[in-house]
Amino acid sequence: MEKKKNISMAVIKRLPKYHRYLLELLKNDVDRISSKELSEKIGFTASQIRQDLNCFGDFGQQGYGYNVRDLYNQIIAILGLQRDYNTIIIGAGNIGQALANYTQFEKLGFNLLGMFDANPRLTGIRIKDVEIKDIDGIKDFLKENHVDIAILCVPDNNAQKVCDELVENGVKGIWNFAPIDLVAPKDVIVENVHLSESLLTLAYLINESQS
Amino acid sequence: MEKKKNISMAVIKRLPKYHRYLLELLKNDVDRISSKELSEKIGFTASQIRQDLNCFGDFGQQGYGYNVRDLYNQIIAILGLQRDYNTIIIGAGNIGQALANYTQFEKLGFNLLGMFDANPRLTGIRIKDVEIKDIDGIKDFLKENHVDIAILCVPDNNAQKVCDELVENGVKGIWNFAPIDLVAPKDVIVENVHLSESLLTLAYLINESQS
Repeated sequence: MEKKKNISMAVIKRLPKYHRYLLELLKNDVDRISSKELSEKIGFTASQIRQDLNCFGDFGQQGYGYNVRDLYNQIIAILGLQRDYNTIIIGAGNIGQALANYTQFEKLGFNLLGMFDANPRLTGIRIKDVEIKDIDGIKDFLKENHVDIAILCVPDNNAQKVCDELVENGVKGIWNFAPIDLVAPKDVIVENVHLSESLLTLAYLINESQS
Repeated sequence: MEKKKNISMAVIKRLPKYHRYLLELLKNDVDRISSKELSEKIGFTASQIRQDLNCFGDFGQQGYGYNVRDLYNQIIAILGLQRDYNTIIIGAGNIGQALANYTQFEKLGFNLLGMFDANPRLTGIRIKDVEIKDIDGIKDFLKENHVDIAILCVPDNNAQKVCDELVENGVKGIWNFAPIDLVAPKDVIVENVHLSESLLTLAYLINESQS
């Protein structure tokens, strides 16, 4: 696969959406689709779609469009989903437990290896097949298991400390639900889900549309 | 407050972050801050910060910087947080219950009025002070209560139908956790939290940094 360097974050953020729509087309037994038809479904312009996909190679044929299965497989390869990812959840409160129960992630190849919490009332509880362990055991766990992604659901005042420990023990991907901006080395990828920020954006837009 | 029209979505998406950092400064009894100092904390350039805030009025003074309390109050007003918002949660599964239990939203002025689910095993359960009701009761509930924001946590195959019913009954704001892109009239604001897309972005970036 030929691939341009320095793909913009805007393109990267659209890739999962291609994945979702192509999977839906596959499920509906659609074999091929033009960029115009895909555009109507996905809500990006046809020219945008062509530009996005051209960042990664030469897909689609003039007059034929895209072969859905091929394009889906390419997107899988681009996103790095041809392999599985080992994950752990740190902070087994409401959000942490909800994510552990979310079966969609497993289907995408994200396997939950462990859950950790500082609260002794939570340790020992099993969520699906995974027992919540004391947070003090993380370091040893990381020595014994390869973890690709740590899902951080701890309170904000504890998040940076936990992040530092994860980084020290070789974790290279952090999915952060704590409402702070973590400081991490460049080779550690942090992807934030800041729920409050999303809700405040919604409040702003509601007011804006009503004023 | 003077305000430019057509504020870009990039600026809007940064506003909640200003809110979060200013609140933190207030909690730490910081009275004033220069755009340079704020820049170091928040991670935007000082010039970016000045540009962002200039969209909404003339804050800060040359040589003094920003009065933290004043700027915080301005951001509150810009975001529309000087008032409360009535919310309901539809879909009381893992994510729905986790959001209901998340106390941070209430502190920001988002009050949970009701929860609804189609599953009879969930109806009747109380999350904090709110009893989960049968989803068939939504229409009547919306006639009797003003709801600003519906938080949609239903499965994807049901989300558009529920969205249509909400829209028909006057809801103008939808916080959507279902992994689909909802179709709604222009005066209805939909803000998405697509967890799987965020996770796939993380996978892409991890692969990218390791290749």
